[in-house]
Amino acid sequence: MIRTGEISLQTKGHADMHDVTNAVADEVRRSGLSDGIVTVFCPSSTSALTTIEFEEGALADLRRALDEIAPPDRDYKHNLRWGDGNGHAHLRAALLGPSLTIPFTKGELRLGTWQQIVYIDFDNRPRRRALVVQVIGE
Amino acid sequence: MIRTGEISLQTKGHADMHDVTNAVADEVRRSGLSDGIVTVFCPSSTSALTTIEFEEGALADLRRALDEIAPPDRDYKHNLRWGDGNGHAHLRAALLGPSLTIPFTKGELRLGTWQQIVYIDFDNRPRRRALVVQVIGE
Amino acid sequence: MIRTGEISLQTKGHADMHDVTNAVADEVRRSGLSDGIVTVFCPSSTSALTTIEFEEGALADLRRALDEIAPPDRDYKHNLRWGDGNGHAHLRAALLGPSLTIPFTKGELRLGTWQQIVYIDFDNRPRRRALVVQVIGE
Repeated sequence: MIRTGEISLQTKGHADMHDVTNAVADEVRRSGLSDGIVTVFCPSSTSALTTIEFEEGALADLRRALDEIAPPDRDYKHNLRWGDGNGHAHLRAALLGPSLTIPFTKGELRLGTWQQIVYIDFDNRPRRRALVVQVIGE
Repeated sequence: MIRTGEISLQTKGHADMHDVTNAVADEVRRSGLSDGIVTVFCPSSTSALTTIEFEEGALADLRRALDEIAPPDRDYKHNLRWGDGNGHAHLRAALLGPSLTIPFTKGELRLGTWQQIVYIDFDNRPRRRALVVQVIGE
Repeated sequence: MIRTGEISLQTKGHADMHDVTNAVADEVRRSGLSDGIVTVFCPSSTSALTTIEFEEGALADLRRALDEIAPPDRDYKHNLRWGDGNGHAHLRAALLGPSLTIPFTKGELRLGTWQQIVYIDFDNRPRRRALVVQVIGE
């Protein structure tokens, strides 16, 4: 049994972070399935998914780390070719990765108490985004 | 066909690394399934999963890299808010990610010869942990 | 319904990057399934998978970032034990991760327009590699 949905988001770019936990949990509930996995996928090369305690302190720490690993104002070969200035966004997205797979049982995501699903848009401008959410189970 | 189990662990924190390969392979065997995927998930925002050759040299190299990317004794905004001193653990967990999905065929995990599944607890104190292991297959 | 295939590759090592998007899409097509997930898995501790816009600029930026995080010519404890000089490859593989899970609907991968699946061999010599590609769906 498989159900595929989407989560639509309006983002601001520049490492804009969105807590999509409730939206993912809603997709699992709508599937009517009891046990299985939900795959959240980011169909984009300038944004990424991970989990984190979604509080401003931890989010700021993650932003600082990514600013150090891939500073926006550094020279990037991608920018030399395309001139769109989002080379750092491509790099960050490749390092963090586009997919998360989370098990659920009795219709509930098996996340930790302080663990939320976060979508991060690294692009350098506002974007409309749609995440793919696919539920597989029984 | 879906089977969900758990792996219970007593960890020491401070980037304590556990080889959970055999425990995951046992869950696959217990499911009685031949082909499919096993999802290992870490329901925590201060620990993570990846694969590595589980020998002391490679583990020490990974610890050093994470000490450089996210030093324990640096200032973290998360620590200013909560005072629990594990801001570096939250950052490392978000960077490495909480989930692994591994295919199996004929009941055997398709890992490489020198590739083990490693669970790393970055928290700054000993913890009791339970990983979720979910097998989907036929 | 589950189908397991392989993608065979001859790599050059040294962060050699291969676009395996078409090969993965072919496996989905061959399965004859409409909706589901494909898991791409790298049975190796010295190579990894992620997604990126597969153009030379973005690839060069990713190579530079990994050269900074895990320089090939630094001292590694793994190298002291084994003398094979690929400690940086183990570290990079553990940081990036071995698995990708991508949803498909109507037989098509739900990737973004500029998003390709990239396999990166970090080892320090040419290798023959086989990625595991497993399709689960209906």
